[in-house]
Amino acid sequence: MKHVLERLTLKEKIGQLNQRLPGWDALEVTHGKLVVTDALKQEVERFGGIGSLYGLQRADPWSGRHWGNGIPPERSAEATALVQSYIRSQSSSGLPTLFVEEAPHGLQGLGGHVLPVNLAVGAAWDDDLVAELAAQVAHELRARGIHVALLSGLDMLRDPRWGRAEECFSEDPYIASHLVRSTVMAMQGAGERIDTEHVAVVVKHLAAQGAGIGGRNGSGAPLGWRELHEIHLPAARAAAEAGVAGYMAAYNDVDGIACSANRDLLTGVLRENWGWEGIVMADCTALDRLLDAAPDHAHAGALALRAGVDISFWDEAYVVLDQALDRGLIEMADIDRACERVLSLKQRLGLFDESPADSEPAPGDDVLAHRLAHRLARESIVLLRNDGVLPLAGSTRLAVVGPNADDLLSQLGDYTAPRPVPDPTSSTIRSALIARGFPVEHAAGSKLRERIDGGLDAVRAAVGASEVAVVVLGSSSRRLYESEFAENGAVQGADLGMTNGEGVDLSRVAIDPVQIEVARAAREVGKPMVGIVIGGRPHAVTEFAGLCDALIFSAFPGPTGGDAVVDVVSGAESPSGRLPVTLPGGEGVWPVAHDERRETSRGYADASYADNVLLGTGLSYSTFEVSVLSGSQTEVRARVQNTGSVESRYVVPLYGRRHVLGVRPRVRQVIGYVPVHLAPGEEQEIVFPLGIDELGTVDSHGLLELTPGHLDVWVSGDLHPPTDSVRIEVAP
Amino acid sequence: MKHVLERLTLKEKIGQLNQRLPGWDALEVTHGKLVVTDALKQEVERFGGIGSLYGLQRADPWSGRHWGNGIPPERSAEATALVQSYIRSQSSSGLPTLFVEEAPHGLQGLGGHVLPVNLAVGAAWDDDLVAELAAQVAHELRARGIHVALLSGLDMLRDPRWGRAEECFSEDPYIASHLVRSTVMAMQGAGERIDTEHVAVVVKHLAAQGAGIGGRNGSGAPLGWRELHEIHLPAARAAAEAGVAGYMAAYNDVDGIACSANRDLLTGVLRENWGWEGIVMADCTALDRLLDAAPDHAHAGALALRAGVDISFWDEAYVVLDQALDRGLIEMADIDRACERVLSLKQRLGLFDESPADSEPAPGDDVLAHRLAHRLARESIVLLRNDGVLPLAGSTRLAVVGPNADDLLSQLGDYTAPRPVPDPTSSTIRSALIARGFPVEHAAGSKLRERIDGGLDAVRAAVGASEVAVVVLGSSSRRLYESEFAENGAVQGADLGMTNGEGVDLSRVAIDPVQIEVARAAREVGKPMVGIVIGGRPHAVTEFAGLCDALIFSAFPGPTGGDAVVDVVSGAESPSGRLPVTLPGGEGVWPVAHDERRETSRGYADASYADNVLLGTGLSYSTFEVSVLSGSQTEVRARVQNTGSVESRYVVPLYGRRHVLGVRPRVRQVIGYVPVHLAPGEEQEIVFPLGIDELGTVDSHGLLELTPGHLDVWVSGDLHPPTDSVRIEVAP
Repeated sequence: MKHVLERLTLKEKIGQLNQRLPGWDALEVTHGKLVVTDALKQEVERFGGIGSLYGLQRADPWSGRHWGNGIPPERSAEATALVQSYIRSQSSSGLPTLFVEEAPHGLQGLGGHVLPVNLAVGAAWDDDLVAELAAQVAHELRARGIHVALLSGLDMLRDPRWGRAEECFSEDPYIASHLVRSTVMAMQGAGERIDTEHVAVVVKHLAAQGAGIGGRNGSGAPLGWRELHEIHLPAARAAAEAGVAGYMAAYNDVDGIACSANRDLLTGVLRENWGWEGIVMADCTALDRLLDAAPDHAHAGALALRAGVDISFWDEAYVVLDQALDRGLIEMADIDRACERVLSLKQRLGLFDESPADSEPAPGDDVLAHRLAHRLARESIVLLRNDGVLPLAGSTRLAVVGPNADDLLSQLGDYTAPRPVPDPTSSTIRSALIARGFPVEHAAGSKLRERIDGGLDAVRAAVGASEVAVVVLGSSSRRLYESEFAENGAVQGADLGMTNGEGVDLSRVAIDPVQIEVARAAREVGKPMVGIVIGGRPHAVTEFAGLCDALIFSAFPGPTGGDAVVDVVSGAESPSGRLPVTLPGGEGVWPVAHDERRETSRGYADASYADNVLLGTGLSYSTFEVSVLSGSQTEVRARVQNTGSVESRYVVPLYGRRHVLGVRPRVRQVIGYVPVHLAPGEEQEIVFPLGIDELGTVDSHGLLELTPGHLDVWVSGDLHPPTDSVRIEVAP
Repeated sequence: MKHVLERLTLKEKIGQLNQRLPGWDALEVTHGKLVVTDALKQEVERFGGIGSLYGLQRADPWSGRHWGNGIPPERSAEATALVQSYIRSQSSSGLPTLFVEEAPHGLQGLGGHVLPVNLAVGAAWDDDLVAELAAQVAHELRARGIHVALLSGLDMLRDPRWGRAEECFSEDPYIASHLVRSTVMAMQGAGERIDTEHVAVVVKHLAAQGAGIGGRNGSGAPLGWRELHEIHLPAARAAAEAGVAGYMAAYNDVDGIACSANRDLLTGVLRENWGWEGIVMADCTALDRLLDAAPDHAHAGALALRAGVDISFWDEAYVVLDQALDRGLIEMADIDRACERVLSLKQRLGLFDESPADSEPAPGDDVLAHRLAHRLARESIVLLRNDGVLPLAGSTRLAVVGPNADDLLSQLGDYTAPRPVPDPTSSTIRSALIARGFPVEHAAGSKLRERIDGGLDAVRAAVGASEVAVVVLGSSSRRLYESEFAENGAVQGADLGMTNGEGVDLSRVAIDPVQIEVARAAREVGKPMVGIVIGGRPHAVTEFAGLCDALIFSAFPGPTGGDAVVDVVSGAESPSGRLPVTLPGGEGVWPVAHDERRETSRGYADASYADNVLLGTGLSYSTFEVSVLSGSQTEVRARVQNTGSVESRYVVPLYGRRHVLGVRPRVRQVIGYVPVHLAPGEEQEIVFPLGIDELGTVDSHGLLELTPGHLDVWVSGDLHPPTDSVRIEVAP
């Protein structure tokens, strides 16, 4: 891209590195016609173009865009074309911009397909399905003129208090790595060139945001090198291997150095050690937050640029890069390097082609996407307990109670655009049960954190009039148009209706006491009781579980979530989800990830580890026998048989404990998983390939190497190697 | 020591590195006569001597020694002489042993002076007093034949859940460093040679045990290099600078490498970077715990020896060092190096002198030690709130209620020997109030975590019959002779009576709900209410504080604790303690140390930071005005005036926020403190010297260097630099 770069003025180069204008301010609708705003014109004039534009199609309470004033799907292509045309026309070199949008679980734009949140995706353990769906999303985005999708997936769920827990695939880096790899490859396509059916992906966040102290959003992660590379960087490394277009640098610091100013991370690890090439984008306003580590904006910008940030996201710091240059804080080569990376991404997307790549986008398949999302939601349903009450017979009279029984918004998760009205493809548990013909009595009982007058009486009455109580509790990341937002869109004001999502970190993670009252009221009536948690974080469910005869955990399953849960509850499908995270047994009982290092303490004197619900937990309506047949350094063979009477999908996980001389081992790690689908009596042999990803240890450059030692493997759900585990000697 | 070393066989060398026999098993009393046991004889024969003997005089539930079967103070010298004489007589080279004892807050032996726990010491902010007291303890120990005192002090209180919180001086490394330095210098004396009025000190634990995840004892500390050096190693560095004789390696790992096998730490940091010379002792059974990172004991021993562990503490791993040598896992030079260090310490203590150094020990001064301990306890009392009810007039009729109102054992802390019977110098709050002539009604109301039948009624009756309620709640590290213990002496079985101490980690740290019921019962009567917390960890006191008109926090103040609290409550002394740790506002609200790095999040949506009680909090009966007069790179001058009407001790803290380019600053750090004593109206100018300890940043070798930037300093209690803070430019 040298030839393009050479034609650019300093102002234009700086323009390529800035992403300042809120995209939703770039267009307005006048008499039904889309027109570019003065804000866009000023921004384009200021920089002689715009390097990338974030959020043109974003719609949500923060942007203030909704069906009344936002860009509907059918006008998306028109909108992007209009803005692109304007920007190109005003740039001396005709440089196109990049349209960047949030797509953490589908596009956060009007009419975008909404998928289950990542935490639900993690519960399905299904790389192939995720890839199919990701491809559909990519088609949809590109058809709407979008070039770059911001995708959550690198954050590891290490603290249940963190409000963004729902954006994590898992606490386990192996699961997260596989899902990130599948998603990135499906969204970008396999080639170096990103064609018109695919989009560039910027994965977020780099790095260790899930390790912020206290589970507080963006707080420091004072991590050591092994912890960083073993737990927090594998998913990023998988993305690099998949050729991901970019990374978003996280807000947090790693051991004192903010990620956005962290040369060791952004250049040392990513580029020098991993050999990756692409762009690094800062998180929203993250560079201006460097002012606590720099005397002024120019210094902040210089820190970031020299560390390896190529694109700023709403900062003053990158606007004044010219001052930084004048003051000798950076060199022109620093600007050129970043600029060249941005231009290279545009080239990779075909934006410099004679016939621009996105002139004829390939539309996505709406029906297919919906069907896949529904399937993914269904696979994500985790049955934690079943004393025989499930599945429900078709005519059972049900009391469907609790605040999440009939609240679509609570199923969707954060970063979701407003639903269309009407919304015929969505379902709540109540609506889905009714649609299947169950006689249903309903009472909310309470709000998530507030009592409702007469709520408990209504619950008792509903349960009294029914044969089985279905009690749906949990949390919600609903955003309100009346909420207050921080400058980066995180929720700011307290809001009792929201218990999850960015900006909603909690010190207590058990199912709220107000909701437990609802469960108690239902229980008191004496009917069989099915508990369902629809939530966005690893809630402590000990108390709720103790009240139920069956318990289901469903991380925000999306708009088809009601149908998905009812597929399982009704027995139409046997449940097959497994927890991708360990649920703490009670308040204050964390961290509890299954792959913490071994400890010798007895745990908390006032809590029982037996109350923790371990990663991998998930029951079926059938029964399965699994065993390891053989293990070597290249593969593990296992056998699984459906020994029950119900045809069912079933995920076979492979767990391992790796021993290396001198290093305290982690208790257990996922090192493989294979979903199967077996009829009663059917059996299957499974091969888990082993390689450097499963056996390697991290060297001082963050690269994997084979260190001598051994690996114990097993396929049962045990936390510690059971007696039938197989030991594999590892030699380089 | 080469000449001694050369005379030793391999067996004898290995013997010098092992500390296996429980000291309390070395002697028995037969017909009133002390005799060496067969266990001692076997151990001596096995190794041709014994390098060091732990716990000859230890008395507590774990050792099973008490006044009925242990070594009383008046026979200590006889006991050590007897054992020493036996060991020397059986060693071919006449090598003496080292007598090692626990002295985390005074000797854990019968009749030993018991001081306030470290957390209370931290609340006094009084290096000079600590030094005076430490000197007395050292005299006492040496007079009892003890050579080596194991001293807590390196652990930083970063998680309120940790049961050993009471053994920490502070969450702040500056406070801990100063107290460790004062203590070590006072106990060892200033010279290289440790004379007969002093003892060698082994400080513990190295390193970062206070950062174990989840506050779980000995769990991993996945820390980065800056966090380790800035927070967890300064106290260790201070000890090195004070010439400390040794370090105890901690149980935990640091980023995956167990401290006992951590060459970077034990050799790299301590010896190569800091230039320190001395011995490293492993924690009890810590080397055998390396078996999770080593295939057998010989490998575990080799890991530890090569990392830099010189003395094992009850492990098989060091018994088989000969096998490790045979198998080529270590070299003779590794054994010789460790052995030479042990011999050097004996030489430093004068044990090779013609006239052995400990033949004429200098006795301690009982009265002085008691007086100093009482003063220290008094200075440690922190007044958190006072709506005018304190101090109490002398004739006030008091209801003294709550489980810690009259329970001496709850005042003492962990690692305490049984008290003498009778115990005339001890006092509880109840007994001290009675002794001062207050009319007192008493009711325990509850146990620490259990209701008592009729307890609340008794509380109400007592308060009803009184003018003021004094409600004493909190926690306890009492150990019972019936308790179960782990192999290293940590409490193993659950015990409702114990809520603190080694092995008693808790997931919840608020004052127990059962105790809050007592406070509510007292409150309901409608009398003015003084709340007192006697506890061993940073309890969340929000709920209790809301019920009280005045609130005092007293970390386990020791046997004179009752008197100390009553000194303050009665107005005999104005309170002057300050919290050395931040109390979390509620469950799940942690970490909250005042020196965490700056965060941009709003904190927990379900908790208010305003409920946290900040390090440095502490009220007086007088009022004081403080201001910074001037600041430079070499000193800060401040002025303090007693503007109230009560003569009082007062601690002036100096807080700072250090800015260095590219590093996220810590919110606030203690960088100086000076206790003053001022009459009403009196004022004083204070000089805080600044130097590399206060201004430096840690380089890649863990050494301090002056990095350009600036430092904001202030003397008010604000968490953030107030408007009258002074900025100091820092240049190398």
